[in-house]
Amino acid sequence: MSNIFGKNFRVTTAGESHGGAIAAIVDGCPAGLKISKKDLQIELDRRKVGQSKITTQRRETDEIQIMSGVSQEGVTLGTPILLVSYNKDAKSDDYEHLKDLYRPSHADYTYEAKYGIREWRGGGRSSARETLSRVAAGAIAQIYLRQKGKIEFLSFVERVGNVVLEKKDFAKITRKKIEANIVRCPNEKKAKEMISLIEQVQKEKDSVGGVVCGLIRNVPAGLGEPVFAKLEADLASAMMSIGATKGFEIGRGFASAEMRGSTHNDEFLIRNKKIRTKTNNAGGVLGGISNGEDIYFRVAFKPTATIGKRQKTVTRDKKQVNLEASGRHDPCVVPRAVAIVDAMAALVIMDHYLGR
Amino acid sequence: MSNIFGKNFRVTTAGESHGGAIAAIVDGCPAGLKISKKDLQIELDRRKVGQSKITTQRRETDEIQIMSGVSQEGVTLGTPILLVSYNKDAKSDDYEHLKDLYRPSHADYTYEAKYGIREWRGGGRSSARETLSRVAAGAIAQIYLRQKGKIEFLSFVERVGNVVLEKKDFAKITRKKIEANIVRCPNEKKAKEMISLIEQVQKEKDSVGGVVCGLIRNVPAGLGEPVFAKLEADLASAMMSIGATKGFEIGRGFASAEMRGSTHNDEFLIRNKKIRTKTNNAGGVLGGISNGEDIYFRVAFKPTATIGKRQKTVTRDKKQVNLEASGRHDPCVVPRAVAIVDAMAALVIMDHYLGR
Amino acid sequence: MSNIFGKNFRVTTAGESHGGAIAAIVDGCPAGLKISKKDLQIELDRRKVGQSKITTQRRETDEIQIMSGVSQEGVTLGTPILLVSYNKDAKSDDYEHLKDLYRPSHADYTYEAKYGIREWRGGGRSSARETLSRVAAGAIAQIYLRQKGKIEFLSFVERVGNVVLEKKDFAKITRKKIEANIVRCPNEKKAKEMISLIEQVQKEKDSVGGVVCGLIRNVPAGLGEPVFAKLEADLASAMMSIGATKGFEIGRGFASAEMRGSTHNDEFLIRNKKIRTKTNNAGGVLGGISNGEDIYFRVAFKPTATIGKRQKTVTRDKKQVNLEASGRHDPCVVPRAVAIVDAMAALVIMDHYLGR
Amino acid sequence: MSNIFGKNFRVTTAGESHGGAIAAIVDGCPAGLKISKKDLQIELDRRKVGQSKITTQRRETDEIQIMSGVSQEGVTLGTPILLVSYNKDAKSDDYEHLKDLYRPSHADYTYEAKYGIREWRGGGRSSARETLSRVAAGAIAQIYLRQKGKIEFLSFVERVGNVVLEKKDFAKITRKKIEANIVRCPNEKKAKEMISLIEQVQKEKDSVGGVVCGLIRNVPAGLGEPVFAKLEADLASAMMSIGATKGFEIGRGFASAEMRGSTHNDEFLIRNKKIRTKTNNAGGVLGGISNGEDIYFRVAFKPTATIGKRQKTVTRDKKQVNLEASGRHDPCVVPRAVAIVDAMAALVIMDHYLGR
Repeated sequence: MSNIFGKNFRVTTAGESHGGAIAAIVDGCPAGLKISKKDLQIELDRRKVGQSKITTQRRETDEIQIMSGVSQEGVTLGTPILLVSYNKDAKSDDYEHLKDLYRPSHADYTYEAKYGIREWRGGGRSSARETLSRVAAGAIAQIYLRQKGKIEFLSFVERVGNVVLEKKDFAKITRKKIEANIVRCPNEKKAKEMISLIEQVQKEKDSVGGVVCGLIRNVPAGLGEPVFAKLEADLASAMMSIGATKGFEIGRGFASAEMRGSTHNDEFLIRNKKIRTKTNNAGGVLGGISNGEDIYFRVAFKPTATIGKRQKTVTRDKKQVNLEASGRHDPCVVPRAVAIVDAMAALVIMDHYLGR
Repeated sequence: MSNIFGKNFRVTTAGESHGGAIAAIVDGCPAGLKISKKDLQIELDRRKVGQSKITTQRRETDEIQIMSGVSQEGVTLGTPILLVSYNKDAKSDDYEHLKDLYRPSHADYTYEAKYGIREWRGGGRSSARETLSRVAAGAIAQIYLRQKGKIEFLSFVERVGNVVLEKKDFAKITRKKIEANIVRCPNEKKAKEMISLIEQVQKEKDSVGGVVCGLIRNVPAGLGEPVFAKLEADLASAMMSIGATKGFEIGRGFASAEMRGSTHNDEFLIRNKKIRTKTNNAGGVLGGISNGEDIYFRVAFKPTATIGKRQKTVTRDKKQVNLEASGRHDPCVVPRAVAIVDAMAALVIMDHYLGR
Repeated sequence: MSNIFGKNFRVTTAGESHGGAIAAIVDGCPAGLKISKKDLQIELDRRKVGQSKITTQRRETDEIQIMSGVSQEGVTLGTPILLVSYNKDAKSDDYEHLKDLYRPSHADYTYEAKYGIREWRGGGRSSARETLSRVAAGAIAQIYLRQKGKIEFLSFVERVGNVVLEKKDFAKITRKKIEANIVRCPNEKKAKEMISLIEQVQKEKDSVGGVVCGLIRNVPAGLGEPVFAKLEADLASAMMSIGATKGFEIGRGFASAEMRGSTHNDEFLIRNKKIRTKTNNAGGVLGGISNGEDIYFRVAFKPTATIGKRQKTVTRDKKQVNLEASGRHDPCVVPRAVAIVDAMAALVIMDHYLGR
Repeated sequence: MSNIFGKNFRVTTAGESHGGAIAAIVDGCPAGLKISKKDLQIELDRRKVGQSKITTQRRETDEIQIMSGVSQEGVTLGTPILLVSYNKDAKSDDYEHLKDLYRPSHADYTYEAKYGIREWRGGGRSSARETLSRVAAGAIAQIYLRQKGKIEFLSFVERVGNVVLEKKDFAKITRKKIEANIVRCPNEKKAKEMISLIEQVQKEKDSVGGVVCGLIRNVPAGLGEPVFAKLEADLASAMMSIGATKGFEIGRGFASAEMRGSTHNDEFLIRNKKIRTKTNNAGGVLGGISNGEDIYFRVAFKPTATIGKRQKTVTRDKKQVNLEASGRHDPCVVPRAVAIVDAMAALVIMDHYLGR
């Protein structure tokens, strides 16, 4: 359903970029969980605007208020948790010239086709600012899952344009390594290359795409439903609901299409008295259900649609015009998207975890 | 929800491979639509077992009964449509040796981790036979959408192992060209290569993966929801809910991650007095909503998990054993998967179409 | 959603009175539950047509097939359970004269207003035969709840026309007492009066209404949601979804509207070291959540709409006509409705029980 | 689902009595509707605390902010509408003595049984303050339905304790007559009796129950689903989800249980060239679907649980104690409940109206 995500851990979001606030109501969070504004802020800071030289310079504090569902002692009550972030640095004037035209590869035209009206200030509901709700709600899920099941969410940047982190050892990836640089790639050498590519693109008034690799550790075997709510289907839906995503793959993904069964199949074996797989080409899921191995997947992000370069487009009354964007924007979304991928992954795992 | 798909056009499915029947209840189909067993059979025959030398030789008729929701004159009543296909050629004996072991890359182990029990005959609920329900329900959606909006579903095989159909002109693809060969690739030369690869793999008692390219024509602008039920999110969920899928991408997909915004952005222009895009790198969706261009996407299928080659695995009581599969199976799933991809795409579009 | 009931224990139903079959798919039933056709038949026989002189003489066997979701050993697999009952004694000819007119107080007119078409044979989807699915699905829930929590469903007939069972001691009501007579009133004297009233009404070619009192024993404290899915709201919805129901009340119900707080309030006290209430005027729920006391409620059924007496009505083309019904029908629905009320109550409790 | 209501017009609510705010997110409101804070305030004022001498003297302004989903010109965007009302006059000290005991007939005990924790300040989530969200969301639905279909919501007080408005002519009831007195009974004589009964009860430190009669005018024929989402089932669920309700009946309701079919059946006739019923005993619905007649129903409210009189109860550690409530409360809830009944009725009709 449009603005509601999840079945057991239900997150309803609201808010335009330049309205009063961005908000989420989290319905179905178990009672008795200790959460604070500070805990949520850790995740929010990872998607915050203006956090580094390679992100948009819009200056929202991205601070969130917990307005219900938590006792005065900071413990969840089992009732819905209302999270609100007021919009502050909303420069509507920046967008005045966009009122009547459709920005290429933005949602301006399609919103208008659907609703007959659109909020042109800052992209309205289609603004990346919407993801703040997701990150705040996902932060609650992460706290719960860490406490209950030591489940960890460790997404990182795997690709920016043609710079790729080919080799990685999932077992060695930590949140600390990811947060060690502003591009959120756990390999310092590759991180530097990515950063300089982004800076170069920025200078060219252009943008560039990238890939976030999602990694979830310690998911117990048995999560996921057998047919329509397969764990990989829910993860795919969650990821493809993030703006600017164009692809999702799990395990060996598209590469598996080129493989033989004899090479791709994950043999079962016994390790530490547990049933494990030898190779984990599957990426932690079999038949829609987690098998206890690391869940890993990849999410493709297109280059930011807003660019400074001149582009052709049309107006509402079908006139051809030129556009040179002057709004504030990220030259590459993946460094901030890492927090969003973790949040959405946490919402999916939480939903299945509560539904066990 | 596990076995229910859709919000407005709701399909509930049931059935194990070797139980009494495979069934679907379609709830929410508009009244007044003429449908017949024969209409549905066209789609069912495309996913049927034993249809050619490159598919499994199991001999189900895959015939479906329409048991409710349709008047004696063959017109839908607005009430739920019950579709039932009885299981006939269910050779349980073939599976007796699988009772206590977990087949590699199958759902045996994960079903048991989740439910504490599993139907080992023919894979039970995780059998590909489950998709019969989807194809039957999707056939109803296709009939409706063709009549109401001339919307067409034209998925085809793009890749088998390392044989790829690189170049294609979406405008020239027709159902007839797709159905012209048993592998369902609309290019005869490539089709032959694919078929001989599958035959070779079959001889080697192995299997091979592939890619189905989904194509939807004539979707009006304005379908899809802005945040969580983005059209691409629902398509991704639908595709990744099909067994053996490992990846989904729309438009330029993963390739867009390597591109610059200035190259990837689709400029708007006026063609035949309509607002169109110059390039359709987006694949027909912007911000979760259709923009009136062709919707195209790709779905990666892993190689069939069942292979004749010897593999190592473990039993329920954690003993190491060897396995040589003798059950009937497809060496490559994509030729039959084409019908399933079309069906699931139709369910998604139908759901959004009815919710306009 | 129209033909789907429940969130955790989801029942999708299908089937018209005179189509191929009546069916249900139960999605979300826990694995490992032993169920058999025979177990379900106990409940189905309680709603069966032709079971006594005071019910309709239509001669369906009302037998049900379990076609999926259960292992060959009779144990649920966690996968959807398909239940099918084929229609046999469907005398369409009986209804030919109803094709173009709207029977008073039936759904003929409203179905046509909604769908533009209706199945006039036997009332189609609005036939009481539809409740067979509910009773079968509810029987599964009852088996589960009895085994897991000793929860019992003990609905009975409290009123037929002006014959009322005023005084009753809930603690002494048993299934045996309820089933001791054909009207299902656990007081033999009142039962006789009710039966003779029904027989008299039958002779007069008329019908009469009644009240079923629902009783649920051993529901643990803590079931129900605080706001929209209050236990009493879900029970009300479940009961009012049964055809011919016109009212629902819980605890003291409408009588509480005439009371003072000082009389109505249930004081808490300690009994057998447990927190209990002194009076249970509330009927086992407080603020939408069960409090561990007996849940009791009442459901009002209107007199059967089909009567043999002459009535005036109109045809599709707005002509005034007279109607004397000749179809087979119950002069009073409550004796058979008892099984339906138990079934729907069980579906509600099951849904909340699984969602704890 | 606990805090989410509706399928097409989805309202998610949040907020405790003494937390930061009460809020609602309305998802699914069509774009292009003009709404303002002032429009919503009309409905909110009808449920406001402290509005007259017979309501609680808590002094919330009950003002609501529209924080998203509406353009700067006051037109809905099709995106979710966030409504927030900040809590101001939240005297937590009033409730300190209730921390460890369970108030009779309140939700204190059951919330704790469910969640293991409860917000004892002002009843937390179970406070009547929660209904503010419903009234605000329902006001939007009322505006839409009035504009699109002239549908009117005209609930009124029919009973307070033993004072009943027996005779009424639905055709003559207007919002003006309802609002002409503080008890919201459209008959001045009865209104006076009701008011003096409430005042008397107030003096006695007691409370009294009542009945709200719901009335919906101009609902077109054809709204409602045939089986589980019958219009009367959804109305029942909506009404029984309001705190303190104990019963719901539609049309002749419980009285129909005493009637014969020949008396209860509504004959069809032609009036002004339209198909109408002679009697409307059904209350505007047949088989779950509206028939174009007035929809009328009754909702029973128990006496307010909070009373000044001394009562016995128990503490969390199972000690017997006496309680004399000193919090602010209404001696009778029905005068304010009228606005809530209208709101919930509007949410139900809106949901079905959008789903046509």
